[in-house]
Amino acid sequence: MAKSDVKLIGAWPSPFVMRPRIALNIKSVEYEFLEETLGSKSQLLLESNPVHKKIPVLIHGGKPICESLVIVEYIDEVWSPGPAILPSDPYDRALARFWAAYLDEKWFPTMRNIAAAKDEEARKALIDQVGEGLVLLEDAFSKCSKGKGFFGGDQIGYLDIAFGSFLGWLRAIEKMNGVKLIDETKTPGLLKWANSFSSHPAVKDVFPETGKLVEFAKVLAKLKATPPK
Amino acid sequence: MAKSDVKLIGAWPSPFVMRPRIALNIKSVEYEFLEETLGSKSQLLLESNPVHKKIPVLIHGGKPICESLVIVEYIDEVWSPGPAILPSDPYDRALARFWAAYLDEKWFPTMRNIAAAKDEEARKALIDQVGEGLVLLEDAFSKCSKGKGFFGGDQIGYLDIAFGSFLGWLRAIEKMNGVKLIDETKTPGLLKWANSFSSHPAVKDVFPETGKLVEFAKVLAKLKATPPK
Repeated sequence: MAKSDVKLIGAWPSPFVMRPRIALNIKSVEYEFLEETLGSKSQLLLESNPVHKKIPVLIHGGKPICESLVIVEYIDEVWSPGPAILPSDPYDRALARFWAAYLDEKWFPTMRNIAAAKDEEARKALIDQVGEGLVLLEDAFSKCSKGKGFFGGDQIGYLDIAFGSFLGWLRAIEKMNGVKLIDETKTPGLLKWANSFSSHPAVKDVFPETGKLVEFAKVLAKLKATPPK
Repeated sequence: MAKSDVKLIGAWPSPFVMRPRIALNIKSVEYEFLEETLGSKSQLLLESNPVHKKIPVLIHGGKPICESLVIVEYIDEVWSPGPAILPSDPYDRALARFWAAYLDEKWFPTMRNIAAAKDEEARKALIDQVGEGLVLLEDAFSKCSKGKGFFGGDQIGYLDIAFGSFLGWLRAIEKMNGVKLIDETKTPGLLKWANSFSSHPAVKDVFPETGKLVEFAKVLAKLKATPPK
């Protein structure tokens, strides 16, 4: 597959964009990365994802595929000779999909709301909720990993990608709020996993630096505080 | 597989519960239906889905599987000798998953909010939004069905189940609000599809009557209006 046949519309700070990037790296698929500019949407993005107008969009052989987890499953199915991303057992697949949905529908929205909390009490309540979610995920890790290093077992898989894509922002939030959310006491499995994940060959080149994300969060906050002209 | 090995915790008016029921019917899998009582949650439900405490839950060989679309994919994978539910082509699968996510995350939440609209203007705006979503789905239907009768082509599949499970409530909302949302002018494809879907052998016995849903909606509204003792 020629590189130009696979394009990904995205932006470096987006956890959702990290997902297809990691999946493509796992499958050793070369692709062209089309970086969107903060505050505007390219014509290609608007045409490729008219329903949501959101990144990421994978364009494969001219056809657009949208929604990060849908793209990851697509990559796994199309480049099936490469290392498997979804577990092979149907029950393990169901567990991975269940926790990925939990992350996107419950856990991450709570974490994202921390920055917009209306007062200190609300901020603390949200941080506590994120911590409670991590305890659930620690339990999921022990069940899914079966004593191995990743949710996917020996190799990183679907749930590693779904959760690991949020790790950069989790670290940025820890830094900005002066808290430790993944630690040796409550989530020892996740602590070890997070280090293995972020230094994995398929991940490390697309894993954002905490300092850069903190800077980006400040730019975002400034943009939101400035009324449009 | 003995019937007692497959159990489904659910309730008849829930669109999400309809999904695994239809999928099990397509695969000709017998199952025990464990009906939850309105206003309370069984011990089995709380133990089987401790994260969300929500129906449906499929219990297969003693193991719980939660989240309606995750269950449908599980059923498709476990009883794979039966008729396929997901399309075989990866791009078609991605399209089906994309639209199913759109239904659950955007379209249905809008429809569900109609009953709780604070005034007439808000109610009308929501009804219009639901109608706009149906126009998008009409377009998706023409692309996915490729001239055949179902989103899945000749046979009902994943997206038919994901969308069709909401049809009973859509009809109840049309009746309660005196509007037609699926009609010959704007959504002729969906109009024909809706009739084929609701009378399909795998669907008709679990498809709720509009009148019963309207009655159920009244009971729900009454429950919400009555402060707990």
